[in-house]
Amino acid sequence: MSDSTNFRDTLEVFDNPSPERNFTIEHHCPEFTSVCPKTGQPDYGTVVFTYVPDKLCVELKSLKMYLQRFRNEGIFYEAVTNRIMDDFLAIVKPRRVRIETRWTPRGGLNSNIIVEYPDPS
Amino acid sequence: MSDSTNFRDTLEVFDNPSPERNFTIEHHCPEFTSVCPKTGQPDYGTVVFTYVPDKLCVELKSLKMYLQRFRNEGIFYEAVTNRIMDDFLAIVKPRRVRIETRWTPRGGLNSNIIVEYPDPS
Amino acid sequence: MSDSTNFRDTLEVFDNPSPERNFTIEHHCPEFTSVCPKTGQPDYGTVVFTYVPDKLCVELKSLKMYLQRFRNEGIFYEAVTNRIMDDFLAIVKPRRVRIETRWTPRGGLNSNIIVEYPDPS
Amino acid sequence: MSDSTNFRDTLEVFDNPSPERNFTIEHHCPEFTSVCPKTGQPDYGTVVFTYVPDKLCVELKSLKMYLQRFRNEGIFYEAVTNRIMDDFLAIVKPRRVRIETRWTPRGGLNSNIIVEYPDPS
Amino acid sequence: MSDSTNFRDTLEVFDNPSPERNFTIEHHCPEFTSVCPKTGQPDYGTVVFTYVPDKLCVELKSLKMYLQRFRNEGIFYEAVTNRIMDDFLAIVKPRRVRIETRWTPRGGLNSNIIVEYPDPS
Amino acid sequence: MSDSTNFRDTLEVFDNPSPERNFTIEHHCPEFTSVCPKTGQPDYGTVVFTYVPDKLCVELKSLKMYLQRFRNEGIFYEAVTNRIMDDFLAIVKPRRVRIETRWTPRGGLNSNIIVEYPDPS
Amino acid sequence: MSDSTNFRDTLEVFDNPSPERNFTIEHHCPEFTSVCPKTGQPDYGTVVFTYVPDKLCVELKSLKMYLQRFRNEGIFYEAVTNRIMDDFLAIVKPRRVRIETRWTPRGGLNSNIIVEYPDPS
Amino acid sequence: MSDSTNFRDTLEVFDNPSPERNFTIEHHCPEFTSVCPKTGQPDYGTVVFTYVPDKLCVELKSLKMYLQRFRNEGIFYEAVTNRIMDDFLAIVKPRRVRIETRWTPRGGLNSNIIVEYPDPS
Amino acid sequence: MSDSTNFRDTLEVFDNPSPERNFTIEHHCPEFTSVCPKTGQPDYGTVVFTYVPDKLCVELKSLKMYLQRFRNEGIFYEAVTNRIMDDFLAIVKPRRVRIETRWTPRGGLNSNIIVEYPDPS
Amino acid sequence: MSDSTNFRDTLEVFDNPSPERNFTIEHHCPEFTSVCPKTGQPDYGTVVFTYVPDKLCVELKSLKMYLQRFRNEGIFYEAVTNRIMDDFLAIVKPRRVRIETRWTPRGGLNSNIIVEYPDPS
Repeated sequence: MSDSTNFRDTLEVFDNPSPERNFTIEHHCPEFTSVCPKTGQPDYGTVVFTYVPDKLCVELKSLKMYLQRFRNEGIFYEAVTNRIMDDFLAIVKPRRVRIETRWTPRGGLNSNIIVEYPDPS
Repeated sequence: MSDSTNFRDTLEVFDNPSPERNFTIEHHCPEFTSVCPKTGQPDYGTVVFTYVPDKLCVELKSLKMYLQRFRNEGIFYEAVTNRIMDDFLAIVKPRRVRIETRWTPRGGLNSNIIVEYPDPS
Repeated sequence: MSDSTNFRDTLEVFDNPSPERNFTIEHHCPEFTSVCPKTGQPDYGTVVFTYVPDKLCVELKSLKMYLQRFRNEGIFYEAVTNRIMDDFLAIVKPRRVRIETRWTPRGGLNSNIIVEYPDPS
Repeated sequence: MSDSTNFRDTLEVFDNPSPERNFTIEHHCPEFTSVCPKTGQPDYGTVVFTYVPDKLCVELKSLKMYLQRFRNEGIFYEAVTNRIMDDFLAIVKPRRVRIETRWTPRGGLNSNIIVEYPDPS
Repeated sequence: MSDSTNFRDTLEVFDNPSPERNFTIEHHCPEFTSVCPKTGQPDYGTVVFTYVPDKLCVELKSLKMYLQRFRNEGIFYEAVTNRIMDDFLAIVKPRRVRIETRWTPRGGLNSNIIVEYPDPS
Repeated sequence: MSDSTNFRDTLEVFDNPSPERNFTIEHHCPEFTSVCPKTGQPDYGTVVFTYVPDKLCVELKSLKMYLQRFRNEGIFYEAVTNRIMDDFLAIVKPRRVRIETRWTPRGGLNSNIIVEYPDPS
Repeated sequence: MSDSTNFRDTLEVFDNPSPERNFTIEHHCPEFTSVCPKTGQPDYGTVVFTYVPDKLCVELKSLKMYLQRFRNEGIFYEAVTNRIMDDFLAIVKPRRVRIETRWTPRGGLNSNIIVEYPDPS
Repeated sequence: MSDSTNFRDTLEVFDNPSPERNFTIEHHCPEFTSVCPKTGQPDYGTVVFTYVPDKLCVELKSLKMYLQRFRNEGIFYEAVTNRIMDDFLAIVKPRRVRIETRWTPRGGLNSNIIVEYPDPS
Repeated sequence: MSDSTNFRDTLEVFDNPSPERNFTIEHHCPEFTSVCPKTGQPDYGTVVFTYVPDKLCVELKSLKMYLQRFRNEGIFYEAVTNRIMDDFLAIVKPRRVRIETRWTPRGGLNSNIIVEYPDPS
Repeated sequence: MSDSTNFRDTLEVFDNPSPERNFTIEHHCPEFTSVCPKTGQPDYGTVVFTYVPDKLCVELKSLKMYLQRFRNEGIFYEAVTNRIMDDFLAIVKPRRVRIETRWTPRGGLNSNIIVEYPDPS
């Protein structure tokens, strides 16, 4: 796997224009693709971000470029979803965030992964 | 019936990439088939897993291979659903899991079975 | 009306494969037919069972055969629904069960009957 | 208006087959028609009964005949709904009942009336 | 059966405002009701008129009053549809007309009748 | 199999009220049931009649009673559809008729049969 | 009824920007209202224009103002549809045009009127 | 691959009850499964038969048993569809037949195969 | 109005990769906006191109830039649709092309314009 | 651009199992991705093949591998669609084939390309 630090640096932010409010931002990214580390075959999915910003908002074009960096990356569904969460928390530092990945069928099975911050338990 | 231990060994796991979180994984498996122990006729159904992993995640291709081993197995709806739960708990050891099987009609009747861990009562 | 005991004996059970769990079984039976005791005309409906088994599960083919025995039986909607509940409780002895019958229109009216154990009040 | 007592006598009942239970009966009657007392024009609507029987159940064909008696009766929406409730309570004496009438448009307006026993306030 | 001539006289017409054109008029009448001559029970249906007027158009309120006259008339589906056609042809004298009646279920059966002028064969 | 002549005699007709026209009658009968001659299990289906009457129309209640006579009759899908056609042609003698039967699934398969008069080839 | 000439003068046109072509223009006007000349009650409907312009196109705001002039006009469905056609032909002089009015229910009946130029017969 | 002759012999026929007519029979078989000869993985699909019988009709249970024989057979989509056509033509000898197979996704691709007799070109 | 020649020059083309074939290209552009020349208010619509290229294809980004140049242009629906057709014909020189504009409601009216080359008459 | 010959060689074929018939094969490939040669950004689309094979059929896994080779290829929509057609004709040599590509929005525009053999003009 590539060095995660490099991917994360692609994410750019700008100042939250209204940090005095708790407001919600959703980004739907239906063109995500990465590579299965076991078979070498491409995976396709949708990534949905739902977050309440604190001091920063993620810049949309940089988010697209960040997600494109996984295009030729070999990584499991569970790992990529958590890695996106790690990067998002490190750079955007939101008050709350939920990241869901929904994957097209592979071998007759299809999967969804849901990660939330703060921890829902 | 075959020795359950053998089927269970087909399931492979990998380390949960983020065990510090409680996140949710869903797998939809619409191509399940087994055999009715009473009539010898094939049954068809969908198996849906929804779980919060602890230290381990189930590897998707091994889950497919595991489910395929029931292809020629004579077993009731209720038994196969609970047996999948037993195997899943033994190998994946999740924090929480819900397994639902939904079956196509037989003799004009169609059935669903829902098993949860920990026990919902 | 025929002797209810005879119908009940058609129901076969098998040992609950996982009595240590509280799990849920649903059976949808859309091809039920009986006869109106007032007009002698056939009635058509769907019977839905939702139950948590205790020591026993109902065998599906015997459930089909049991329901077919009402095919030429003259009996009201309310009576047949409660009689199925009585038989189900006597033979399957579930922890919980809900039985709903949904009937096609007669004389421009259509009806549903819902019976639950334990009593919902 | 005709004598309400006569209409009420059309309703027939039979013994609740399982008075030891609280179970629910729904009857949908989409072919109700009466006459507007102001314009003399016919009104069309659906009457929905949802009740928990006590000692008695309403016989379905008599319910149909009872509702047909309003066919040429001049009566307002609100009055007919409450009069059906009065008759139903007097004859069937249920533990609980909800009666809803839903009317087709008149002059570009359409109406629903909902009456419940015991009183919901 | 009542004297058809009387019913027919309820239909009022007005001069086609543009007889130089072949234009099309549709009237949907979803609140038709008559009585089954065999059982004495009410029937419910929709009547749809589609016609090209010649010198006359049917006045809409009179059409409603005309259809209401069948409210307590005992008449078969096939007969009422053809009788409406006879009356419409006699009074409105259209260039072309199609009349379709669609009936709610009776005894588990539901019917549609379609009559056209000129004859479609 | 029972003597077909007897069933056929259940069908009653009445005089076509408008034999001078070619008009179309549709009857949808969704509550048909017969018995599989091979397994002895009940079959369920819908029968749809679409016909242009000549001198006679089929009476609806007799059509219902006729179809009910198949309730305990062992007969294949193809045979029952053609037998209904034979009986309908013999008694109603329509100018044109199409009969379609649509059956609920058996053993995971579901079937439709379509017969037309005159022959469509 | 008011003098039709005045209404018609509300329609404004502009030069067809491409008279060398046969192209199609559609205008959907779902907010039309006029008054029933018989009952004095308001009618509501949609007017749809589909035309191929010749030398002129109708200006959209003037079309809206023109249609609004019918707001307090007592006029039958058939008459208003043909009058709009007359005005449209007189002012816009299209190569082809189809005008359809679709009306909300009145007294349980709803109607559509369709007029075309040149005549479709 | 197994000997095709053996599979074919599973198909049973019965005499067409009305060979004097050209009527149509449809069978939908949504639970077909075979094995990919390249990967050894199971394939899942639906087989639809639409045919006009000549002297013989296919017996439905034997058709189910015949299709089940492909359960563990390694065979391509194109080959299995044509082989079913060959067997159907050899045993049932219909006047006309169309066989369509519709397959669930494999590797992100999903396929349909359509074969007709007589040849459509 | 601005000089049309300038807008047209924004369109870029590239060589048709397969001029030996008649193949079809569709571009849906749902984000078109221009200005009403009468009210100064913005109009919003979709432009759909369907064409068979000859020697040239339109480059997609230049098409987007071309359409954006109408953002502050005062122009009627009919004129802009024909002007886009003129520019497309002048620069792309297709074998066939159809351009449709679909506009959001203005003052309660919504419009569509359809232009085709060669002329459909 | 890479050498087209190399991509083409990825396509594998097998002998048409029934070349004596004209039958139809459809493959839906919703996970196609290539790169825009102008912006360097990824494009996403669906490729649909519909063909009548002659002596050869395309092997499905090789078709998947072939399409994956465009993953990092800079190529226009029109060019890639025609190049797939060229490769398909060269290797599979079908009697007839239609290839359609449907692309997700770029810059607010979305496109479809349709190529057919033999030429539809």
